[in-house]
Amino acid sequence: MARKSSADMEKTKQVLLEEGVALLQERGYHATGIQEIATSANIPKGSFYNYFASKEEFAAAVIRHYAQTSLCSWQESLNQAAAQYETGEVLYQTFLAATEKYRCSEQKKGCLLGNLAAEISEASEECRQALQASIANFIKVLAEHLARGQAIGAVRRELEPQLLATIVWDVWQGSLLRMKVEKSVAPVQADLDVLFHQLLRP
Amino acid sequence: MARKSSADMEKTKQVLLEEGVALLQERGYHATGIQEIATSANIPKGSFYNYFASKEEFAAAVIRHYAQTSLCSWQESLNQAAAQYETGEVLYQTFLAATEKYRCSEQKKGCLLGNLAAEISEASEECRQALQASIANFIKVLAEHLARGQAIGAVRRELEPQLLATIVWDVWQGSLLRMKVEKSVAPVQADLDVLFHQLLRP
Repeated sequence: MARKSSADMEKTKQVLLEEGVALLQERGYHATGIQEIATSANIPKGSFYNYFASKEEFAAAVIRHYAQTSLCSWQESLNQAAAQYETGEVLYQTFLAATEKYRCSEQKKGCLLGNLAAEISEASEECRQALQASIANFIKVLAEHLARGQAIGAVRRELEPQLLATIVWDVWQGSLLRMKVEKSVAPVQADLDVLFHQLLRP
Repeated sequence: MARKSSADMEKTKQVLLEEGVALLQERGYHATGIQEIATSANIPKGSFYNYFASKEEFAAAVIRHYAQTSLCSWQESLNQAAAQYETGEVLYQTFLAATEKYRCSEQKKGCLLGNLAAEISEASEECRQALQASIANFIKVLAEHLARGQAIGAVRRELEPQLLATIVWDVWQGSLLRMKVEKSVAPVQADLDVLFHQLLRP
């Protein structure tokens, strides 16, 4: 069999990452085998190691890939909301749109970052670091938007935006866990409403 | 080998549940094998099935056992705090004491309910239902205490206690996920402070 060109290698690596997001999001780390991952990308199991040294290294790369693409699509969604809503409503509407995506997914898989934080922060230092860096990026963007809300008086001002941003992130992740347990997005919608329309208001 | 008496059977079942809490809390569902569970309770692997029909049934029983004992010890902690602090501070102090227990555990294992909500809500309907019922019990107790806070004017009153209780639960669970990712209880302490001393205040 001829060696794959580096362009083909890169293409297969991207397929592995995409399939990895789907598999790890649905089943978690331990319930997903390298054989399944390889099969999903149409490569033999042995070839997997041409792309990643281990399942752990693969999972860390999947975390970074998921976080990067999610943050990109989330920022697009923020920009769309910014064009439609006043500053104080932009974050609420963006989270509501994200919730709507979960509602349409029958599986209610939840957020890969939260799921893997729960499952493998202890077991894998490499994945823990990837999760930590990814979550910090989200909180940074949240803090910037909350600061804008504070500047126009739509968000309470007595707390640092960073502190409020971590609360928003934690409510979001906690409510996504309840979404999985309740098999419904109603807990997420209720939390977003209380948070953005009551607790964060001046 | 003589058959175990039903008292001995009950004792072994309790040991299995206790060891199950420790194993599932540290490693999660999929990374824990029946062999390990049996070994931890000093019984042969085959005997495990005298106690539980499957690993799934076992995990659901562990969830209920953990929730019951945690809720008991949490209510004791609430009573202790009620004797020491004013009504508006009782929940904050109780959560702070719970956080302190996590600080002392080197492993930062997190909450079994949150960890398994993330890992197996999808995969096991039996465990999902055990999680749902257990979490509802916690939220009920939280709502009762928040209603007391509202009655004396220490907690904001424009929202139903049930809605505030779910926010408190979700912030708690979200911050425990970040505790695992940050390897520190600082995120939990910061959230509790913002939540109880700012956002929930009238």
